Amino acid sequence: MTGLPATNKGVATRSAILERACEMASMIGLEGLSIGSLAAAVGMSKSGVFVHFGSREELQLAVIDLTAQRFVEHILSPALAAKRGLPRLHALVRAWFAWIRNHRGSCLLLSAIVEYDDRPGALHDRIVSYQLRWRDELMRAITLAIECGDLPPEADKHQLAFEVNAIALGVQHDAAVSGIDEAIDRGERMLERMLPRRAVTQSAIRGT
Amino acid sequence: MTGLPATNKGVATRSAILERACEMASMIGLEGLSIGSLAAAVGMSKSGVFVHFGSREELQLAVIDLTAQRFVEHILSPALAAKRGLPRLHALVRAWFAWIRNHRGSCLLLSAIVEYDDRPGALHDRIVSYQLRWRDELMRAITLAIECGDLPPEADKHQLAFEVNAIALGVQHDAAVSGIDEAIDRGERMLERMLPRRAVTQSAIRGT
Repeated sequence: MTGLPATNKGVATRSAILERACEMASMIGLEGLSIGSLAAAVGMSKSGVFVHFGSREELQLAVIDLTAQRFVEHILSPALAAKRGLPRLHALVRAWFAWIRNHRGSCLLLSAIVEYDDRPGALHDRIVSYQLRWRDELMRAITLAIECGDLPPEADKHQLAFEVNAIALGVQHDAAVSGIDEAIDRGERMLERMLPRRAVTQSAIRGT
Repeated sequence: MTGLPATNKGVATRSAILERACEMASMIGLEGLSIGSLAAAVGMSKSGVFVHFGSREELQLAVIDLTAQRFVEHILSPALAAKRGLPRLHALVRAWFAWIRNHRGSCLLLSAIVEYDDRPGALHDRIVSYQLRWRDELMRAITLAIECGDLPPEADKHQLAFEVNAIALGVQHDAAVSGIDEAIDRGERMLERMLPRRAVTQSAIRGT
């Protein structure tokens, strides 16, 4: 954290600038973020902003870190309050859908991974590392559901984590086409259909 | 098409500028596109580019139109060559995955719908209209599969179109995390799991 002033006032100023940077990045994308426009938005000089972030890339990394931290807190807190197994996995996905509802058109992390896929560098690496960590969280919830006997022991946790992720992406995308309520409803039905049953149940026999 | 010269040379020049604009937009996003940077890239004056597109928004709309046209051609041509029903639906999804493979980090239309979700205007409307048309194409393929008896008559074509779309989004996203080969492999397995069986089959009894 280049040049971060170690005073309370410095920390508060940095935090306020970063907050504004997150808002701006969610509107115009991480790549649209510049020290100049951010300085104008918070009513400071460019050099005043530089003192807190050192470079545009440091600023972009700080935006990624804060967004990822908020995403995980928003989703894992309600999930951890739910019963282990499928109830926890469902709570996690419901919280994810709620996050999408509250961040329409501005899911910075989802946009960023596509934006930086073909641009090697520190931003790309940071974004991918958060995606991998999040995939690990999904696999952890799925593993717990297997251990609890809510999912069959042969369930493929990598595949299911991919599928849960795809469902969330589908909901985010569909919100722009069909509205968020219908998108979430379809996402919930898809999740229900995708999760394998532990044993032969009526719904499995019906092939749904 | 404001100010489009009606000569062959004019058409060819416009086409060359638009080609470059599509490349740039796929790298920096539709919103990053400017007449100035495009003019510099094609070695023309700003007014020279303006003659062909009239405004930045006209240019952005032309980029959306050309990208959508290419996407549909790329995917529907191989699909229409396949047998009606599930073979055609599978061919469509395979062609979609191939498109994702060839457009890593640059699927303009997928990025754009999220980018413009909260910005009303002509660009938003154009993007949503293409998404709706594409959803209709998916539903048409699904309806054919139902009519052929490849999918059960009670299959929900809206829901299945949502799910096919979600799988493609999952593949695009996962390519940046796990690599395109693994992403496509998971997408194919997900599609296989998701498509309902016409009757009780072995795989339905196994609950997969």
